[in-house]
Amino acid sequence: MQSFNPPVRTLMGPGPSDVHPRILSAMARPTIGHLDPEFVRMMDEVKQLLKYAFQTENEMTMPVSAPGSAGMETAFVNLVEPGDKVIVCINGVFGMRMKENVERCGGVAVLVEDDWGMAVSPEKVEAALQANPDAKIVAFVHAETSTGACSDVKTLCEIAHKHDCLTIVDSVTGLAGVELRVDEWGVDAIYSGTQKCLSCTPGLSPISFNERALHKVRNRKTKVQSWFLDLNLVMGYWGQGAKRTYHHTAPVNGLYALHESLVMLKEEGLENSWARHAAMHEKLKAGLTELGIKFVVDEAVRLPQLNSVWIPEGVDDAAVRAELLNTYNLEIGAGLGALAGKVWRIGLMGFSAKEENVLFCTSALKKVLGK
Amino acid sequence: MQSFNPPVRTLMGPGPSDVHPRILSAMARPTIGHLDPEFVRMMDEVKQLLKYAFQTENEMTMPVSAPGSAGMETAFVNLVEPGDKVIVCINGVFGMRMKENVERCGGVAVLVEDDWGMAVSPEKVEAALQANPDAKIVAFVHAETSTGACSDVKTLCEIAHKHDCLTIVDSVTGLAGVELRVDEWGVDAIYSGTQKCLSCTPGLSPISFNERALHKVRNRKTKVQSWFLDLNLVMGYWGQGAKRTYHHTAPVNGLYALHESLVMLKEEGLENSWARHAAMHEKLKAGLTELGIKFVVDEAVRLPQLNSVWIPEGVDDAAVRAELLNTYNLEIGAGLGALAGKVWRIGLMGFSAKEENVLFCTSALKKVLGK
Repeated sequence: MQSFNPPVRTLMGPGPSDVHPRILSAMARPTIGHLDPEFVRMMDEVKQLLKYAFQTENEMTMPVSAPGSAGMETAFVNLVEPGDKVIVCINGVFGMRMKENVERCGGVAVLVEDDWGMAVSPEKVEAALQANPDAKIVAFVHAETSTGACSDVKTLCEIAHKHDCLTIVDSVTGLAGVELRVDEWGVDAIYSGTQKCLSCTPGLSPISFNERALHKVRNRKTKVQSWFLDLNLVMGYWGQGAKRTYHHTAPVNGLYALHESLVMLKEEGLENSWARHAAMHEKLKAGLTELGIKFVVDEAVRLPQLNSVWIPEGVDDAAVRAELLNTYNLEIGAGLGALAGKVWRIGLMGFSAKEENVLFCTSALKKVLGK
Repeated sequence: MQSFNPPVRTLMGPGPSDVHPRILSAMARPTIGHLDPEFVRMMDEVKQLLKYAFQTENEMTMPVSAPGSAGMETAFVNLVEPGDKVIVCINGVFGMRMKENVERCGGVAVLVEDDWGMAVSPEKVEAALQANPDAKIVAFVHAETSTGACSDVKTLCEIAHKHDCLTIVDSVTGLAGVELRVDEWGVDAIYSGTQKCLSCTPGLSPISFNERALHKVRNRKTKVQSWFLDLNLVMGYWGQGAKRTYHHTAPVNGLYALHESLVMLKEEGLENSWARHAAMHEKLKAGLTELGIKFVVDEAVRLPQLNSVWIPEGVDDAAVRAELLNTYNLEIGAGLGALAGKVWRIGLMGFSAKEENVLFCTSALKKVLGK
């Protein structure tokens, strides 16, 4: 067996996105101990920078030492107790995964379903809460990676709070790519991923919990079923101050990478990052429209960073993606679940959201489609 | 905020150990998609190489996308069902964590306790199994990172099997540092970490389950409580063959690093790696003995890669470790739990297990202790 030298791809799928060379370099810096004072200082900076990215003052803002799916699980295992009723909004793959999480915590999931490609309907959520006055949590996806639909976090949180529910928000694909204001919008618990609009390497999941959510975590009747994800324990390691309690060995080099990606976000400015994603989407839209390619999601609720488009009639899905990959080293995403074989997902996330990529992608598609 | 440039340390604590530059370089290679055919090919190589490291033919041999603690949780959530009785051997911190895991899965933990620094007593395990004929699993730590004691995996597995129990073995610190033969010794489920004797970056947990263990996983009455760690789902992604089902986004660059570290292990040869750890321990022992420093663990069950030594009387634990770190950039480990403040833990793991480090560590200690 030999060392693995990956091909150099352009990543325009649903994530991972292209990782900036600065971030890759940061990742290769010498490993130090996870309790080293210098490492602890860096952890504090990561927390500060994540607060900025999430637009929150939540003290419990940190990266879970595992991918976004574990961030999702962190939210559910800490906040759902056996018997708790949870309104779960499903408009794509990740809402379905939320339902799985609720049930594995012994909770009762009440489903609010919207078609794939639509945003979550606030009216349906309101109706579900009226029909289920004992519901304790409303869970929904901000930015559905499987479809590219963006839901109205602020409105959904208002409705949930009116009915005295906590909110769990999935913004794996949203963070840094589209407007997100955790405190102003009243999000109680949120999780994201590093490999999307932060253009960092995959493997970590930034989360943020406000005091209302932590109150529930601290006052559970039962222990959190996961030892690894129990925030009562994780807080002892990621908490403020010199006294840190060993919990698990942090993924040191992965955190170097996240730190660097957040420094770059700060340098660019969060609003500028949102604006860049929006601008690149406009350029991509223009290019694809010229090729006669149509978008799945209505413009009003379309995520700029995740573009689901209908595969033109008569075109072989897998053959086109394979040719893009093999001839041009260009990755675009396949459809997931209900949309498998019907759509492509073209990502414009983080470092991938630049005009070079838009031009390259549209011209490569043009060639491969024989237009 | 600025980029983080870590100090260059020599890591001789309980892990992470020094990471070889080849592995750091591998980690910084360009990220590709987690469903890219080239990445899938690399995953297959990682599985092959892990089989070699574990000395197993188990098809279910793969790295969990999270640190060793999550590897532990993978073993317990998949194998323990509510009401299952589990014999948990405790001779240090990690046995205690196993008990937490059993209980959070709704299992009943029957404790077999040995003093910290001792190996697990086969006689006590035999007695516990005779007293608990309904026990289904025996769980123990091969290489206790908190003390440096090595338990007899082969004998403990034989006893467990005689009583028709499955075995769960923690070899986070053992893998590649000391003899371990998963198939020959009859281990049913095992987990490890990347940041110890593989001298890879922290963040992943290699595991291996045999068919007997998987039979239990496949025939559970209840769903695995963790979605992220449910092997019934994870197998769909890491399984053999072209048809992979998306589960979560793999930590692509972390896996590059693991691949490289395993290629290096193959190049050195597993037995040679075990022998190197043993030889370096002998050299360290000679150096420490000259300084009048004594070992906690009896020679017969002492791990060569994790050396717990008594802090000499009248010596300030924290002050010495701080001076080693600040003056010499040398990290050694503090005591954990019952041994906090009483011992140091000097690691000789992976790339750290070399004569340069032994000489450096003993001479730095000599200076700081004023000998």
